[in-house]
Amino acid sequence: MPLKCPISVPESALSEWLQTWLQEDIGRGDWTTAGLGALAERPGQAIWVTRAPGVVAGLPFARRLFQQLDAAIDFQPLVAEGDACEKDMAIANISGSLAALLTGERVALNLVMRLSGIATATRQYVDCLADTPTRFVDTRKTTPGLRQLEKYASRVGGAINHRLGLDDAVMIKDNHIAAAGGLGAAVAQIRPAIPYPMTVEVETSSLDQVEEALTCPVDIIMLDNMAPETMAVAVARIRAARPEIKIEASGNVTLATLEPIAATGVDFISSSAPVTRAPWLDISMQIV
Amino acid sequence: MPLKCPISVPESALSEWLQTWLQEDIGRGDWTTAGLGALAERPGQAIWVTRAPGVVAGLPFARRLFQQLDAAIDFQPLVAEGDACEKDMAIANISGSLAALLTGERVALNLVMRLSGIATATRQYVDCLADTPTRFVDTRKTTPGLRQLEKYASRVGGAINHRLGLDDAVMIKDNHIAAAGGLGAAVAQIRPAIPYPMTVEVETSSLDQVEEALTCPVDIIMLDNMAPETMAVAVARIRAARPEIKIEASGNVTLATLEPIAATGVDFISSSAPVTRAPWLDISMQIV
Amino acid sequence: MPLKCPISVPESALSEWLQTWLQEDIGRGDWTTAGLGALAERPGQAIWVTRAPGVVAGLPFARRLFQQLDAAIDFQPLVAEGDACEKDMAIANISGSLAALLTGERVALNLVMRLSGIATATRQYVDCLADTPTRFVDTRKTTPGLRQLEKYASRVGGAINHRLGLDDAVMIKDNHIAAAGGLGAAVAQIRPAIPYPMTVEVETSSLDQVEEALTCPVDIIMLDNMAPETMAVAVARIRAARPEIKIEASGNVTLATLEPIAATGVDFISSSAPVTRAPWLDISMQIV
Amino acid sequence: MPLKCPISVPESALSEWLQTWLQEDIGRGDWTTAGLGALAERPGQAIWVTRAPGVVAGLPFARRLFQQLDAAIDFQPLVAEGDACEKDMAIANISGSLAALLTGERVALNLVMRLSGIATATRQYVDCLADTPTRFVDTRKTTPGLRQLEKYASRVGGAINHRLGLDDAVMIKDNHIAAAGGLGAAVAQIRPAIPYPMTVEVETSSLDQVEEALTCPVDIIMLDNMAPETMAVAVARIRAARPEIKIEASGNVTLATLEPIAATGVDFISSSAPVTRAPWLDISMQIV
Amino acid sequence: MPLKCPISVPESALSEWLQTWLQEDIGRGDWTTAGLGALAERPGQAIWVTRAPGVVAGLPFARRLFQQLDAAIDFQPLVAEGDACEKDMAIANISGSLAALLTGERVALNLVMRLSGIATATRQYVDCLADTPTRFVDTRKTTPGLRQLEKYASRVGGAINHRLGLDDAVMIKDNHIAAAGGLGAAVAQIRPAIPYPMTVEVETSSLDQVEEALTCPVDIIMLDNMAPETMAVAVARIRAARPEIKIEASGNVTLATLEPIAATGVDFISSSAPVTRAPWLDISMQIV
Amino acid sequence: MPLKCPISVPESALSEWLQTWLQEDIGRGDWTTAGLGALAERPGQAIWVTRAPGVVAGLPFARRLFQQLDAAIDFQPLVAEGDACEKDMAIANISGSLAALLTGERVALNLVMRLSGIATATRQYVDCLADTPTRFVDTRKTTPGLRQLEKYASRVGGAINHRLGLDDAVMIKDNHIAAAGGLGAAVAQIRPAIPYPMTVEVETSSLDQVEEALTCPVDIIMLDNMAPETMAVAVARIRAARPEIKIEASGNVTLATLEPIAATGVDFISSSAPVTRAPWLDISMQIV
Repeated sequence: MPLKCPISVPESALSEWLQTWLQEDIGRGDWTTAGLGALAERPGQAIWVTRAPGVVAGLPFARRLFQQLDAAIDFQPLVAEGDACEKDMAIANISGSLAALLTGERVALNLVMRLSGIATATRQYVDCLADTPTRFVDTRKTTPGLRQLEKYASRVGGAINHRLGLDDAVMIKDNHIAAAGGLGAAVAQIRPAIPYPMTVEVETSSLDQVEEALTCPVDIIMLDNMAPETMAVAVARIRAARPEIKIEASGNVTLATLEPIAATGVDFISSSAPVTRAPWLDISMQIV
Repeated sequence: MPLKCPISVPESALSEWLQTWLQEDIGRGDWTTAGLGALAERPGQAIWVTRAPGVVAGLPFARRLFQQLDAAIDFQPLVAEGDACEKDMAIANISGSLAALLTGERVALNLVMRLSGIATATRQYVDCLADTPTRFVDTRKTTPGLRQLEKYASRVGGAINHRLGLDDAVMIKDNHIAAAGGLGAAVAQIRPAIPYPMTVEVETSSLDQVEEALTCPVDIIMLDNMAPETMAVAVARIRAARPEIKIEASGNVTLATLEPIAATGVDFISSSAPVTRAPWLDISMQIV
Repeated sequence: MPLKCPISVPESALSEWLQTWLQEDIGRGDWTTAGLGALAERPGQAIWVTRAPGVVAGLPFARRLFQQLDAAIDFQPLVAEGDACEKDMAIANISGSLAALLTGERVALNLVMRLSGIATATRQYVDCLADTPTRFVDTRKTTPGLRQLEKYASRVGGAINHRLGLDDAVMIKDNHIAAAGGLGAAVAQIRPAIPYPMTVEVETSSLDQVEEALTCPVDIIMLDNMAPETMAVAVARIRAARPEIKIEASGNVTLATLEPIAATGVDFISSSAPVTRAPWLDISMQIV
Repeated sequence: MPLKCPISVPESALSEWLQTWLQEDIGRGDWTTAGLGALAERPGQAIWVTRAPGVVAGLPFARRLFQQLDAAIDFQPLVAEGDACEKDMAIANISGSLAALLTGERVALNLVMRLSGIATATRQYVDCLADTPTRFVDTRKTTPGLRQLEKYASRVGGAINHRLGLDDAVMIKDNHIAAAGGLGAAVAQIRPAIPYPMTVEVETSSLDQVEEALTCPVDIIMLDNMAPETMAVAVARIRAARPEIKIEASGNVTLATLEPIAATGVDFISSSAPVTRAPWLDISMQIV
Repeated sequence: MPLKCPISVPESALSEWLQTWLQEDIGRGDWTTAGLGALAERPGQAIWVTRAPGVVAGLPFARRLFQQLDAAIDFQPLVAEGDACEKDMAIANISGSLAALLTGERVALNLVMRLSGIATATRQYVDCLADTPTRFVDTRKTTPGLRQLEKYASRVGGAINHRLGLDDAVMIKDNHIAAAGGLGAAVAQIRPAIPYPMTVEVETSSLDQVEEALTCPVDIIMLDNMAPETMAVAVARIRAARPEIKIEASGNVTLATLEPIAATGVDFISSSAPVTRAPWLDISMQIV
Repeated sequence: MPLKCPISVPESALSEWLQTWLQEDIGRGDWTTAGLGALAERPGQAIWVTRAPGVVAGLPFARRLFQQLDAAIDFQPLVAEGDACEKDMAIANISGSLAALLTGERVALNLVMRLSGIATATRQYVDCLADTPTRFVDTRKTTPGLRQLEKYASRVGGAINHRLGLDDAVMIKDNHIAAAGGLGAAVAQIRPAIPYPMTVEVETSSLDQVEEALTCPVDIIMLDNMAPETMAVAVARIRAARPEIKIEASGNVTLATLEPIAATGVDFISSSAPVTRAPWLDISMQIV
């Protein structure tokens, strides 16, 4: 049965990724399983069990991955995406040809373990901000080739996505500002050259830059690596002058600094830590 | 100038990966940089600086990635692959069109930060075994799409690679044994069906299975999740009966357990921890 | 010599498109030219000449296309992109292997004739608005496979691009509103599910819908198919209530209606006519 | 249910084109529709309605395009390919997941509007020749990437296809003749170098060249840009000397010149006008 | 230095084939050569030597293949394509990085040995007809994936190509005739549905069918599996009735039957034997 | 119905190959069959008949190839893979749309004829060794692009596969030995640089080299081009010194030399002859 793709991506793109990842592991063939011949053609059953507590993400992709090996595989998630699980919990039942189970096991687990690791870590950050109006957002620090799936895991963990690529919003950073010879010059240069519905975000590292940004046609001001007290001043100034502008804080974000930063009243806090520092969630497959 | 690919992979495969990763980030275009127009066409210079101590891996890939954006980019590594670096060390100089520097920065850093994270963690494991004849090997738990590069990072860290895919050696695990109705039956089934120079490794979880393995045409015996004392007995038994067989230990390997396992006399200890649990090495790019 | 890609797209994407288009025409080979053998290996020279007045767009793509056939081809545009040309004007000099000139001619001309046709028609619309603060924008009605190049031609003609695809801004149309059971419900549903820097535009067809839109977190209001008088009322209302919101007019836009619509004070007028109704600009190649 | 591909092309090629065109518009996802979540999962129904009179072409491709998004979409053409339609006629019923309808709408319409525009214009040319034995043929002036589909639209409009690419017939033009140093020399050079069942057509621009062509092993003589009176002489001469040779007229063909050219007795008149000068047929989709 | 592609195919197609073939052999890397490390980076020199007499074909492809591994490889053919060689003749000098020589050797030789085998066998057939006006042509019985290169080898051997694919000429065989309910019916059905410059060949197996063919708009008549005497009658009849029609003989063609068939006066004799029955020409590479 | 892939390769890889081969023949369309229109839409039935005795291989690939053209085709093999067939035996029944039968015929037959030719020749070699403990193995001399399928045909014929590519075992040949400055030096260089389960084979051409090999960590010793008497001495020496080492004989292997070589006691004899010298098995398709 067709299964809704949990990410806003054409089915064919996903299918191509899964195929590439299977091919990467299988190469010229899984000789161990193939060597078993008819013995591996028999139906089998397996469960996936967590080996540590965490937030599960990616089971629908595992399902498709197995079905790409053998359309008759029945993969039943036992938890919803984003569910918090204890250690040693069964999270999926899989049945179908033993050969497909054995050949697909490693790639499928690698994917879900990675994504669940991200969702688990993200959830911690998100929970920290639960009682504040500030929202946690991710970044473009993602594993090459996994951007969309890691962004998905981030959403499953509770974060809001920042831009998915260089083409869906403008982000003017220190280096762009330096190249243009000033923040205002950079905005003046870029704004007329882009599609008109595109958002412009500008990174500021001082109150002076915030002031300059307030005179420009920008939609988002990022406060980069500022002390919370400075941030609070910046927020107050922006709210007064241009209340429609969204405010993002970034830089040196840890679980410990989330609360003081949120207390400054920023709309968003962005951090790559749940993607770049999270261990994989340990999950294993058992043939039953 | 052409640059030797540091992994044993056709240049064209590497080129395709880099292109895919660039495309993933760039999408329909880096509007921020493009918006700067001629301002970003000027030559620029950047350095890469570590933000934490670690072992650097992947600079040759970053070099090619930038050159794929603009063949005129000059990327000069300041450290050799595998060099241990302190925090705040410059590890590469890059010069060329500002536009290419700005557009390629994120993907290049993402790649090198991930690979260096693996090399850093692997080095710790390898160093632990430095005074023993036992060697550290990696596993197939790698990020989908990055198998060959993560295996490379593992080598840079000092590990020996285990098989790179399902097709370059046979590994008979518990599930294959169950499917065949016994270890000996599995080997008997698989051995004649595979290319003749292919190695056969079999996983054992008890001394009884080790005994059974010793009666079969296998090349490697893996001792899976055994207590060190049991391993020691197994090793002695295998050395006596079939000295040409290589012995690998696996399961619950941590920095703390490396030494007692090595003391049992196994040839190899395998673990995925440096790949699945390592944080990325923090590196940043500064336009100068 | 490398040539800057005039669109904000990775070089490799452009290269793939050109290859596909060449392959489409060449198939298993240009037997006519190949049949000439050494006769076609000799150097040749050609000029491109307009056969009608118009605005030229796409010469840099033609240059690359020829160079993809033969890197030694020298293609010199004689006019800048966007220049208005008279009939019978030479717009490019090409020299190099006769074989490449003969084999690439048709595809190169097809591309430039189509793009120049769009730029020519767009320029008419843009010129009509020259004395007003209102800007002309394009739409997603483009030839399948040519979106980015036709958007480029549109910019060359003087238009501002609207979104390039379904993923770079949200546009809530009547059908989305119907699906959600109301404009406000649609915005409420979509806003929290999207990357946070993404712009939200909503289509309105009545003053009541405009009022509803003004209560929602939207960035752009489109006035669809409204009479100029109604538009004027809507514009006044929006400026008063939410001055940061941008206003776009759409529907039944012709050269004749541009002025009255602009007079209502909208920020943008969008139309597909220069793409869907423009004849190709006639250009021919002459071997000299 | 499988649907016969209306063009003589492998299904997989068509499928790849459609996927590319969908991907071009969807990019990283249709955030508007995805944002509606379950609201867009509900079944929906739509009709396609013409907004101008014309000849419809391409509905089977639209059907596949929607089914590539969602195999359960039911797309029912209400008119046959090539049917002439009035303004405001329903030409297709579509039912299935609202999400697929919304996401696929633009690309599907863009394709059918373009193809129907060609069929509509072609039909005018073909009808002009209805009472003559002369047939109307198309050219290689087609939109890059759409050659086969535009050739299909041309057939739907009633034209006969000329060659589809550089590899399915030899066409010796003025530039080839110049390169070889004469018409006869060109034919002598090319004829023995090509697959033996390949047709050779030669372009002539004077009666002298026609005479020269009559002495060569050619299958088709094209009379390029000749005055009707000259053409008539050429036709008489060819019929007398080599009655098996087919005669094609080309150059400056308009609706007005079709009849006088046909009156000269040529077998075929070729023109690119219905492809390069036709506006798209306006069609819209309404959710019901 | 760029090298003219000896077949009428876009360079990019050839490049993709070569890459696929290299990748097929190299997989995740040539571990033997890579294991030699710097030892294999040194410059090396090799010659290719025939191990049997034959006609050499394919050296330009080998050259490109090596250059695709390493652009600095210098590959110098010592014989021209189509030269007849003795046993133990040096046919190419190669110099460049030892690693590229070692890694590319097998694939390059496999290709040239196969193509030279075809050219060698084809030459025998062609030589047999040297003193007759009848020409030898090949068929569509070629190795999947090598059609264009095997057709090239066939030309190098001296044959004329028959059609290269199903799309460059119409060939009406017994099964098509059966489907249409007769030869005339088949031609009547097909002729108006195809591009107008396309050649129509019809297969006949009796004099009655020849007669029927003579009443139809066909360009080539194939005499399939007829006895030479019958063929002679058919030829006489066709020459008398429709001298512009070309005549091809096919079926059970061997070196022994070539002459009697040619004696019937047919224009062409087609056979797949040089492709389907030829041993590879033995060639080896020696590092010097 | 899904059909098990008879080779240990991901389904998607096979599917891509078949598509490429179909596309190679079909190009822009099978105009002959397409021209028949509805006449070719009717159901048809065909049989495949051998035209010579031989061993059949590849029918499952033909089945998939037809189903890739039309999923409803029913292809029933009448013999098992590897069955020895007489001349004029029906080996498959095919039913389904006449169009798919006609369009797919040539490519499907080309593939099965080639693979069956290999299986037929291999069977002769294998049968020769039937009464000995020595096994016949293939080589890397295979047609570019067909490696895996030709290796499959080789297995069907009864051979054991040698390595499938440069990456699944190390094979140190004379050129590698020369590059390293000696056999021992080569092994010492390569062994530590490769994945640890990888087999190392070394080629020897003299008893001295055999002695040197016996002092190195190698798994297989190949005796290259030695006289049987020398081989016998080498075998005795290896068995005495390192009984776990496997012994392969290679070079100048013909049906006549198989027995004397086997008599020396080697484990394996490798030869490319059944791949490089076998004529295709003649098979034809008849519509019934």
